[in-house]
Amino acid sequence: MSSAFSSLPGAIHIREVGPRDGLQAEPPIAVARRVRLIDALVAAGTVDIEIAAFVSPTAVPAMAGAGEVVAAVGRPIGVRRWALVPNARGARDALAVGVDAITITVSASETYSQRNTHRSIEQSLAEVAAIASYTAESTNNITLDVVVSCAFGSPYEGDLDPVDVAAIGQACHDAGVGRITYADTTGVATPRRVRDLLEHTGADIGLHLHDTRATALVNAYAAMEAGVTRFDTAVGGLGGSPFAAGAGGNLATEDLVHLCADLGVATGIDLDVLLTVSELVSEMIGRAVPSRIAAAGPRWRSAPP
Amino acid sequence: MSSAFSSLPGAIHIREVGPRDGLQAEPPIAVARRVRLIDALVAAGTVDIEIAAFVSPTAVPAMAGAGEVVAAVGRPIGVRRWALVPNARGARDALAVGVDAITITVSASETYSQRNTHRSIEQSLAEVAAIASYTAESTNNITLDVVVSCAFGSPYEGDLDPVDVAAIGQACHDAGVGRITYADTTGVATPRRVRDLLEHTGADIGLHLHDTRATALVNAYAAMEAGVTRFDTAVGGLGGSPFAAGAGGNLATEDLVHLCADLGVATGIDLDVLLTVSELVSEMIGRAVPSRIAAAGPRWRSAPP
Repeated sequence: MSSAFSSLPGAIHIREVGPRDGLQAEPPIAVARRVRLIDALVAAGTVDIEIAAFVSPTAVPAMAGAGEVVAAVGRPIGVRRWALVPNARGARDALAVGVDAITITVSASETYSQRNTHRSIEQSLAEVAAIASYTAESTNNITLDVVVSCAFGSPYEGDLDPVDVAAIGQACHDAGVGRITYADTTGVATPRRVRDLLEHTGADIGLHLHDTRATALVNAYAAMEAGVTRFDTAVGGLGGSPFAAGAGGNLATEDLVHLCADLGVATGIDLDVLLTVSELVSEMIGRAVPSRIAAAGPRWRSAPP
Repeated sequence: MSSAFSSLPGAIHIREVGPRDGLQAEPPIAVARRVRLIDALVAAGTVDIEIAAFVSPTAVPAMAGAGEVVAAVGRPIGVRRWALVPNARGARDALAVGVDAITITVSASETYSQRNTHRSIEQSLAEVAAIASYTAESTNNITLDVVVSCAFGSPYEGDLDPVDVAAIGQACHDAGVGRITYADTTGVATPRRVRDLLEHTGADIGLHLHDTRATALVNAYAAMEAGVTRFDTAVGGLGGSPFAAGAGGNLATEDLVHLCADLGVATGIDLDVLLTVSELVSEMIGRAVPSRIAAAGPRWRSAPP
C-alpha cells in the first residue's frame, strides 16, 4: 500500500509512549487516572502502548504501581501492552503480570550511560542479553525492543559515528532482540543524521524523536521518505522536563497523526478521539500540552486569524 | 552548488520579515528600537529584510513611522530593504523614501480578501497591476513581490484548488511582478499541499510559512527537496497573534538556519549572531520568543537532559 506520495509508506505503526515516557517526568499521577488515559488511547485506535515501567518507585515515583496499571488495563483486544524494564529483574516482574512486550534502553553514549544508568554500554548489552535469554525461556511470546538512546548525538560526546550506533543495535539483534528503536534523546537529529544512520541500519527500525529543536516532525517525514514505518510518540508531546529551559518533549502523537492524515499515510488512530485524550492529559498535568495540533486543531478546522 | 543531500539546494535565500510581519501584531515599538533590530539582522548576515509597511498608522499602529525607519536604516551595503504596501499610494510613499523592493499581498481566498482588505481578489489584482505600472515608470530599479495569502487553504473556503492559486500568481507575473511568494497564512500547509502547488507554479517561487500546526519546518524541507530556494522567515518565530489560542507565528529564522546548517544548505546567516538578535527581540516584546532554537540552542551546544 502506498500513500498519495510515491515516496512515502502507505501506513506507519505508532507506539504511544505517553503513559510511560510522557508521565515519568511529571509529578506522580494515581494509577486509576493513568489507566483511564490508557483506556482513552485504546479508544482512539492506538494498538501499541507503553503503559508502565518496572523500575524502582524510589528512583521514579511517577511510575510506581506498574503491576497495578497492567492488571487494571486488562487485555484490550488487538492492543500490545509495552513495559519498560531496566534489568532482568524488571523483566521478570513485567512478565509475571503478563505484559505483551518489553522495552529495554541502551545508550549509544558511554558517558550518558555511565551517568544515567551507572553502567557502561558493554554492561548494558550484557543486561540486554540476559533479558533476551530470560524471556526466550519464558512460555510467553514476548516482543522485545531495545531503544538506543542518544543515537543521533550525545550531550557529552557530541556527534556519534552512525557506524558505532548501528553496531549497538546489531549487537542487541544478535542477542535475540526482535526490534531496535533509535532515540533522539536530546533533540539533535536532523534529516541528514536520520539518513546517515539509516545507511547503516536499514529502514526496518523504530524512531523515538524529541522536539527540542523543532525538528521532530521533519525528522519523521524524512524517515518515512526513507521507508521507516515505526515511530514512538507521546500524546500531547509530553516528556522531557517541563521545567528545564529549552527541554523538548516527545514528538506529539497528534502532530504526527495529523500530518500523516493529510499525506495519505494510515496510522489507524482517530485524530478527533485522540484530541479528547489530549484534553484529558492536559487536565491530568494541570497545564496545556506542547502539541500544536492540540492547541490549534486540525487543518480542516482552521479558524480565521 | 549542491548540499550534502543531492536532493537539496546548495543555498537558499531568506527574506527576514520579523521587523514587519513579526512586529505588526505586537504593541507598538519605537522607531529607534525597530531600527536597532534591523541593524542587528544586517550584522547577522541577512540580505533581504522587510523593514516597514506603508499602511495607515491608525489601522496598524505598530507600523507607524515607516518613512523614519527607512531613513534611519540607511543603505547597508548588499542589503535589499523591503516594504509592504497595500496600494499604489503606499507604493509612492515607499519609493519616495527609497526602498529597494516592495511586497504586495493578494489573497487566494475571496472571503479572506473581502474581510481583511475590503476588496475582491479581482480588485486586488487590479491594484497590483497599478502598482506594477507605477513602479515600472519610476526611475528606480524596484523589485516587486506579490505574496499570495491563504495559498494552502482558507479558514473560510477550506482547501483551495492549486490551479486557481497558481493562476493568481500568474496574473501578477503577467502584470509585471517579478517574484511571487505563496503564504500559508493560517498554517494549514503540509508537504503534500506544497507539492500540489509546486506542480502548477514550478519551483521558482517564495514560500511564507507559519507554524500554527508544527509543520513550518517540514514544509520548508519538502519545498527545498522540490527545488524551492526562497523563504520568508521571522526572527524568533514572531507573527500571528500571541494572544489567540493556537495562533502560530512565522517560521522562525533561527529554526530554518539551524536546520540548513546541518543539512549543508547555505543561508549566509550566522546563527550565533542571529541568536543574539533573538534575545534582543525577546527583550523588545517582553516575553520569550516561540523559536525552539532560541530556547534550546543549536544542536552543537546540546546540554545533558
